[in-house]
Amino acid sequence: MAAIDDAAARLMLRALFDRAVEAADPRRTMPPLLPPPPRGRTVVVGAGKSAALMAQVVERHFGAPVTGLVVTRYGHAVPTSSVEVVEASHPVPDAAGEAAARRMLELVGGLGADDLVLALISGGGSALLALPAAGLTLADKQAVNRALLASGATIGEMNAVRKHLSAIKGGRLAAAAFPARVVTLAISDVPGDSLSVIASGPTVADATSFADAQAIIRRRGIAVPASVTRHLERAEDETPKPGDKRLARAEAHIVARPQASLEAAAEVARAAGIAPLLLGDAIEGEAREVATVMAGIALSAATHGHPLAAPAVLLSGGETTVTVSGPAGRGGRNTEFLLGLAVALQGAETIWAIAGDTDGIDGTEDAAGAIVPPDTLARAEAHDPRGRLAGHDSYSLFAALGDLVVTGPTLTNVNDFRAILVA
Amino acid sequence: MAAIDDAAARLMLRALFDRAVEAADPRRTMPPLLPPPPRGRTVVVGAGKSAALMAQVVERHFGAPVTGLVVTRYGHAVPTSSVEVVEASHPVPDAAGEAAARRMLELVGGLGADDLVLALISGGGSALLALPAAGLTLADKQAVNRALLASGATIGEMNAVRKHLSAIKGGRLAAAAFPARVVTLAISDVPGDSLSVIASGPTVADATSFADAQAIIRRRGIAVPASVTRHLERAEDETPKPGDKRLARAEAHIVARPQASLEAAAEVARAAGIAPLLLGDAIEGEAREVATVMAGIALSAATHGHPLAAPAVLLSGGETTVTVSGPAGRGGRNTEFLLGLAVALQGAETIWAIAGDTDGIDGTEDAAGAIVPPDTLARAEAHDPRGRLAGHDSYSLFAALGDLVVTGPTLTNVNDFRAILVA
Repeated sequence: MAAIDDAAARLMLRALFDRAVEAADPRRTMPPLLPPPPRGRTVVVGAGKSAALMAQVVERHFGAPVTGLVVTRYGHAVPTSSVEVVEASHPVPDAAGEAAARRMLELVGGLGADDLVLALISGGGSALLALPAAGLTLADKQAVNRALLASGATIGEMNAVRKHLSAIKGGRLAAAAFPARVVTLAISDVPGDSLSVIASGPTVADATSFADAQAIIRRRGIAVPASVTRHLERAEDETPKPGDKRLARAEAHIVARPQASLEAAAEVARAAGIAPLLLGDAIEGEAREVATVMAGIALSAATHGHPLAAPAVLLSGGETTVTVSGPAGRGGRNTEFLLGLAVALQGAETIWAIAGDTDGIDGTEDAAGAIVPPDTLARAEAHDPRGRLAGHDSYSLFAALGDLVVTGPTLTNVNDFRAILVA
Repeated sequence: MAAIDDAAARLMLRALFDRAVEAADPRRTMPPLLPPPPRGRTVVVGAGKSAALMAQVVERHFGAPVTGLVVTRYGHAVPTSSVEVVEASHPVPDAAGEAAARRMLELVGGLGADDLVLALISGGGSALLALPAAGLTLADKQAVNRALLASGATIGEMNAVRKHLSAIKGGRLAAAAFPARVVTLAISDVPGDSLSVIASGPTVADATSFADAQAIIRRRGIAVPASVTRHLERAEDETPKPGDKRLARAEAHIVARPQASLEAAAEVARAAGIAPLLLGDAIEGEAREVATVMAGIALSAATHGHPLAAPAVLLSGGETTVTVSGPAGRGGRNTEFLLGLAVALQGAETIWAIAGDTDGIDGTEDAAGAIVPPDTLARAEAHDPRGRLAGHDSYSLFAALGDLVVTGPTLTNVNDFRAILVA
């Protein structure tokens, strides 16, 4: 790579981000994964931030008539012709999502062995498909969810409990469709790309049991509504387990995943003579602390040529967290990461960075993320960068600097994308 | 590497740690850096956790008689014959260190152009060499230090102020020795290995001024004793600047540095068929958060073969932090890192780790650190590992598991050493 100036570095970073999003776009990745049309009918179901866009892709590329219903987040609908799109609430479920889930079970319930169900699953699908098991209410499920979150339960533990309070999760949707063939197409936003985790796996076998769910609630010392205790003790209608014959005709494919987006961005960097290093597709941790660690790695590359020599770009994905205590300003986890990075880099002259949510919405703001050039800290000095970081007001700072990355909703989601360029 | 079992993985990790410490041992690295004896006298001065050991190395390898005085931390003395060793308090300075610093200035004050000063500098030297400028007291300096720390001042800002409240820092010791030749031998425990930062650079030119120190105190809004304000305003006896003729005969060499220890450990791994990746010699951040990020990188290596394929070892140095709020148990930053790592790895089957302070003392405990095998979380279940992490009680947990790494004080210090083995 020739010596890089600020404009070239910004263009390169934006190209990497755009390529990462593009590599996760179902309009590009889904058509080759569509199965051939069946002898019988094809019913489309689905849930998640990409559900409407994925349904549109089916309508345009499947090659046979389809009907069906998908549920997506408010504001995430796109025009479809024969598949109905319902909008519902995320991350807190609402009655619209519940009604849509119930209708999906009905839609697939009457199908035969010649029929096909296309299940279009993406991030957010768990909340959008919240259908409580018989005898439970949405409020019951939410109470348990909150208690699990506060208890320090792992994602695996939370999913095991959720699947046993639901009428559609943990493979129940696919079981309801038997004997129809079920092809699931999923966009992964979870570490490990586990199909049983994405949207709580409505079409995938569940290895956990009612007894597991009870044990988790006991172990975590969680108080749950009496209706939940009774439901778990009764243990009726267990989720389909691996090997269950109702899932014998169900298969699943990943349409987009964080690692594929990182690899696509790496290819762009490599073509420009910049060595890419993929640090991980599921990096977690408090955003500003992740930034401190990444700054240490980038400074090492600049100073010592390890983990690799410049020109290089450190790529990573995953979902960081922002823990707010006290009053907070405006900002998502990506701009908070970037402000932390700028502070930790202390103006290092050869380091640029971009970070953004691949869904185009960093937190609740209208930006996907931002770009940090070497002079960020110097230009930010009048805006009290360390005070803004302490007050979680990173969006406002990058807005003032004119360095926001704005894409609008991308209608896909493979979590965050971060690239640190060491020129 | 052949398939690795638990015993082999533990041995390998301990070998990497031991090699990292050995590569920082002045008994191995200092002799080749000693200058030839001068025509005149040789006076040894020095300060830091390694000062006594470094003086011993001079006595054994210099090849000519020496006299002098070094100051080290209580408990860090070793036997010497002609160089006096004084023990003093660290990290809070005391009168013993102050008296030793004053005597060092006197010792080098009467030397001529044919004489040589060997200045032996290592981590902790700043507190051990705390000699207030005329008109100031140790209490004044400590008050300013505390206020700077609380203000969010950077290390660079703190050093600029410290050097202008001291009678010995910021090159003043070397200036006092002029016209004698001054050879500084330093063990680095600071990011960037800057000689003006290690022990506040008593023998190295200082680019900062009294005006800078005043501006920093104003900018950070710090309240300081009136004596400090007067001293900074008077601006008498400025530190020697780069190019100052009193430093024309001063030179400095690094005896040991974090990166060299990482590279030595990398060589051991490579010889065993394990690919090393050096992530950085100055990784900072909250210990448990650094662990979360490192777990993400290790899991990516295990799952995707990026940033490199197994068998591999991720090496890093630097100093993490542990922020305690509320009652805390026993533990240093390395065991806290390791407990955070075990929790984040969730029992990943092919990942082992070691972390330790190269000075042999993790925090205030009697261990250097600990080892984390894949079954740590399972074996720790009865000890409430997440509760121990929340309560900063990591030492007690690893003690209960029998997985502490105990070396005793190593008398050197190139910060922490972390190795994560992905088999």
